[in-house]
Amino acid sequence: MGDDAASAAQQQRIAALLDEARGGRRAAIARLLSLVERGGPDARTVGRLAHPLGGTAYTVGITGAPGSGKSTLTNALCTHARTESDLERLAVLAIDPSSPFSGGAILGDRIRMGDQTLDEGIYIRSMATRGHLGGLALATPSAIRVLDAVGFPVVVVETVGVGQVEVEIVASADTCVVVLNPGWGDAIQANKAGLMEIADVFVVNKADRAGATETVSDVEQMLNLRPEDGWRPPVVSTVSTSAAGVGELWDAIWAHRRHLERSGEGERRRRGRTATELRGIVAAQLAQRAASLGSGPAFDAVREEVLARRLDPWTAADSLLGPA
Amino acid sequence: MGDDAASAAQQQRIAALLDEARGGRRAAIARLLSLVERGGPDARTVGRLAHPLGGTAYTVGITGAPGSGKSTLTNALCTHARTESDLERLAVLAIDPSSPFSGGAILGDRIRMGDQTLDEGIYIRSMATRGHLGGLALATPSAIRVLDAVGFPVVVVETVGVGQVEVEIVASADTCVVVLNPGWGDAIQANKAGLMEIADVFVVNKADRAGATETVSDVEQMLNLRPEDGWRPPVVSTVSTSAAGVGELWDAIWAHRRHLERSGEGERRRRGRTATELRGIVAAQLAQRAASLGSGPAFDAVREEVLARRLDPWTAADSLLGPA
Repeated sequence: MGDDAASAAQQQRIAALLDEARGGRRAAIARLLSLVERGGPDARTVGRLAHPLGGTAYTVGITGAPGSGKSTLTNALCTHARTESDLERLAVLAIDPSSPFSGGAILGDRIRMGDQTLDEGIYIRSMATRGHLGGLALATPSAIRVLDAVGFPVVVVETVGVGQVEVEIVASADTCVVVLNPGWGDAIQANKAGLMEIADVFVVNKADRAGATETVSDVEQMLNLRPEDGWRPPVVSTVSTSAAGVGELWDAIWAHRRHLERSGEGERRRRGRTATELRGIVAAQLAQRAASLGSGPAFDAVREEVLARRLDPWTAADSLLGPA
Repeated sequence: MGDDAASAAQQQRIAALLDEARGGRRAAIARLLSLVERGGPDARTVGRLAHPLGGTAYTVGITGAPGSGKSTLTNALCTHARTESDLERLAVLAIDPSSPFSGGAILGDRIRMGDQTLDEGIYIRSMATRGHLGGLALATPSAIRVLDAVGFPVVVVETVGVGQVEVEIVASADTCVVVLNPGWGDAIQANKAGLMEIADVFVVNKADRAGATETVSDVEQMLNLRPEDGWRPPVVSTVSTSAAGVGELWDAIWAHRRHLERSGEGERRRRGRTATELRGIVAAQLAQRAASLGSGPAFDAVREEVLARRLDPWTAADSLLGPA
């Protein structure tokens, strides 16, 4: 895949950026994440160089229907982690497949997250890969890889919606938090979206509203039907605007982290995640190969041979594909 | 792709079947089509051996909403072709992706097509590839290839429904017939299903019912909006149960065939069809490669190296893929 490799000069530039980023320069982190977001040879180089430098970051995925208050909750959780717990640094990746903004949306992030950006220990970034099929699924692990290599011990991955790709991204985190709201049927909707299966921790946010108790008991009932596997997801009630319950949420997330380490489930998840990413890269490379094999002079020549019945289509396909 | 090749003995058996089929033995044709339908190495061998023997069959695709009377119309068209025109032999492939019956559904076909099966000049076969993703799209060109190699000058491909795969199959025929019924909105529905674009000939079947004239004029109006490309699809009214209009339909199909030959459009379509099939085979081979690369001892070994950060996922993917 010669055309897939960045030039030597570009590789050196990326290596230098990585050094700067590890030295704490935020602009270098932002540049690296933009390269990852854009995909292609540069993204691959960033991933290759960052990979050996990481391996210790703990990832927390946060998902839920739009409007459930995930952003405010993530905000409150970051403040808690930095002020009430001893966490030195923390990164947030906000995944938004539908966003018309790419990494450049830093201003939007600053506005959204408010006071957090004044805290040098918190790094916030939104990710969007416009019109790039499967782009987010491939880009997110590498964005986490960069933040891991740079030295963030915790990376929070927050999705804007609950689309299939977003759910998959969150499901591949170490700990997966599903945010619900009070109200009839929210738990049932979450169940339909496949969120009940992936949740390690449930949050009923906006718990000062009517129906919160019922929603908590809906979730508990669904959990009663779920087979026991050594971890029963706790259901935490929060009011993110007043930060009520946010400490309990942080404790529940940390309890799950300890469970992952003790039970070996963490290792199993890392193994599964690595396999999924590897399969994704193999599939993407083969799809790229298929696309490039399906046009051009070699393809046209072989097609004419098939049309003239001098070659059958399978032998023709084999000749295009080369040896397995 | 060593595991994709049938054994030498099996290749000899298939070559012998092909000889028998070309000698006129119907049971041999049926066996070959069953092999094609099932997919895998045997289907590939059938296609490879049949490919150089054909190249002259003219294909007519017939599609339309379920219940539009396509089967009865095909039936009437076959009778007309055999008795009123000079066509010596004719084959019908009825494509039914949802059918619980596979090639064995000959009894069903005999019942369905009634008197046609008493005519030795007509060969009828239904095709279904259960649970075989993309199976029909790959199997249909090879089923046509077999009938072509066996010596049928005309192959009619009839679909049961108007699903995406079925429309694509019919669209790749030399001449594409779209069957509508009288009634408000049928032409509009057909337009939505993408049928207006692929039609070379329109049929308003059950034309003895109310609204037939309006449907014909709906279609004509839509055709007025279509850019001229040297062929304006005729709109033929038929009553297939009484065979009224079936002669005109046959003439319209034959007129399109002459247009294809004169204008070079026929050659252009064959070229496009060959390219599409070739791309489909390349994609299927690569998907098979991706699936086999995504598990097994080699994959597990490489995944552990990635997990241990001794290998990055892209280098790992490259080592699984081998040289391009």
